[in-house]
Amino acid sequence: MGKTYDYDVHLRWSDADRQGHINNGKFATYAEDARIEWFEHLPGREGRVPSGGLILARQEIEYHRQVLTEGEPGKHMVMKCSALSVGRTSARIREELWGENDTTPACTVVCVLVNFDYEAQSSTPWTDQQREWIESFAAEER
Amino acid sequence: MGKTYDYDVHLRWSDADRQGHINNGKFATYAEDARIEWFEHLPGREGRVPSGGLILARQEIEYHRQVLTEGEPGKHMVMKCSALSVGRTSARIREELWGENDTTPACTVVCVLVNFDYEAQSSTPWTDQQREWIESFAAEER
Amino acid sequence: MGKTYDYDVHLRWSDADRQGHINNGKFATYAEDARIEWFEHLPGREGRVPSGGLILARQEIEYHRQVLTEGEPGKHMVMKCSALSVGRTSARIREELWGENDTTPACTVVCVLVNFDYEAQSSTPWTDQQREWIESFAAEER
Amino acid sequence: MGKTYDYDVHLRWSDADRQGHINNGKFATYAEDARIEWFEHLPGREGRVPSGGLILARQEIEYHRQVLTEGEPGKHMVMKCSALSVGRTSARIREELWGENDTTPACTVVCVLVNFDYEAQSSTPWTDQQREWIESFAAEER
Repeated sequence: MGKTYDYDVHLRWSDADRQGHINNGKFATYAEDARIEWFEHLPGREGRVPSGGLILARQEIEYHRQVLTEGEPGKHMVMKCSALSVGRTSARIREELWGENDTTPACTVVCVLVNFDYEAQSSTPWTDQQREWIESFAAEER
Repeated sequence: MGKTYDYDVHLRWSDADRQGHINNGKFATYAEDARIEWFEHLPGREGRVPSGGLILARQEIEYHRQVLTEGEPGKHMVMKCSALSVGRTSARIREELWGENDTTPACTVVCVLVNFDYEAQSSTPWTDQQREWIESFAAEER
Repeated sequence: MGKTYDYDVHLRWSDADRQGHINNGKFATYAEDARIEWFEHLPGREGRVPSGGLILARQEIEYHRQVLTEGEPGKHMVMKCSALSVGRTSARIREELWGENDTTPACTVVCVLVNFDYEAQSSTPWTDQQREWIESFAAEER
Repeated sequence: MGKTYDYDVHLRWSDADRQGHINNGKFATYAEDARIEWFEHLPGREGRVPSGGLILARQEIEYHRQVLTEGEPGKHMVMKCSALSVGRTSARIREELWGENDTTPACTVVCVLVNFDYEAQSSTPWTDQQREWIESFAAEER
């Protein structure tokens, strides 16, 4: 695996549902917080309101196994973020949720993010510097 | 009981926690949605962005019994809203959560709401008409 | 469009995020509640604990446009559920979120559901009657 | 201030509502996670399923000021937990939410917790050792 951006996910008691599993919708929340923190480092956007200019166009979430609140060491996990491809105005990223001793991810989220200019209400191209930064996290499809 | 504003609460599967009970924090959500819908009818505020000018200063939530997602008929309940007292710039309201065949509420929420002017960043007095409207839902302390 | 199962989605104030949009993770919640209610009618499972034997293996969520809490009439929308294909032990379903006057869905969720036997801890085939019921909601890929 | 149990609260992007404030119901979530972690250290309960035997009978939440997701350093805050009084089968605790450079808490939660025996379905007395442990976090009313 190449370079990833690693985000600490802190589980909450109420993230689990009646079956003691983390509810499926919470993985979207973890993925959101991970990519917001990741993209706060996007060149030219430092200090901007998080996620202010990034629109989620699509996400695919694969649940590889059940995640139990109790079962995870220290009740926190890691979301490993990488870039699958970079388009002119968008990027396809992958986020994988790992517990401390896991040999495979519990969950994989693949997102299409659009670089959006809210004032112009349209998508807007990445700068060369931004593209380079995203590509420094390049990962292979699996 | 005097006149109440009755708000339909639609339970969600993920409102329940590992023990199958509605999670304690969700009652705050139900109470919020109930008073937002209720105060959309406040004279002089019709059509305004819900809750735009009302600040929650304090809430007390009493859990009288466990609420199970499955146990509630049709998976919806009713939040009955009334006014305990009206101050110059605030109101103390009561919201009670009832299931269809209940003889006592499952939960009681008592809130202090402040009529807030976001532009002036200060509390602002109710108009006479607003005070009258709130008082039309007057209820006794229990 | 063929026969769909239509589930009423009741938006909550706190479903929206800082930008006034329904948060992306909430669509997973709406989709979950819709398919739980839908599959409560699965032959042979009536009256069973909702979602007790259905595992979500994967979901793809496409956000076709921003959904604003305020902008939706009556603050409720409809999730239209249909079946794209039925396997031996699983089904691929589609759920589309529609506002009252919409001519296109705001959001499309495609899920793979696995019929799971928690006691045996393995997937289990649909009965003929169950397969027939699911297929009665058959829809075309788009 | 006497000894407190300090719990790290990690804010999430979706904790904020349309106005950019942490939604009022989320403070109940923070308070829940703080006291679950705190009471995992209760003598005689180590290693038990968190919150398994503690019932929340009542909580009062005071919102002293608006909390903005963006405004908090490092996006985390601290919940300081202490004990106001200990009864035979219950305890009244206080939880205060502090940002890094705050001189006053942003929010105060006062809870009544009941020590509950789920098998017997009744409240059950604290042991002497448990009472002593809780009292070691004693705080004054304010």
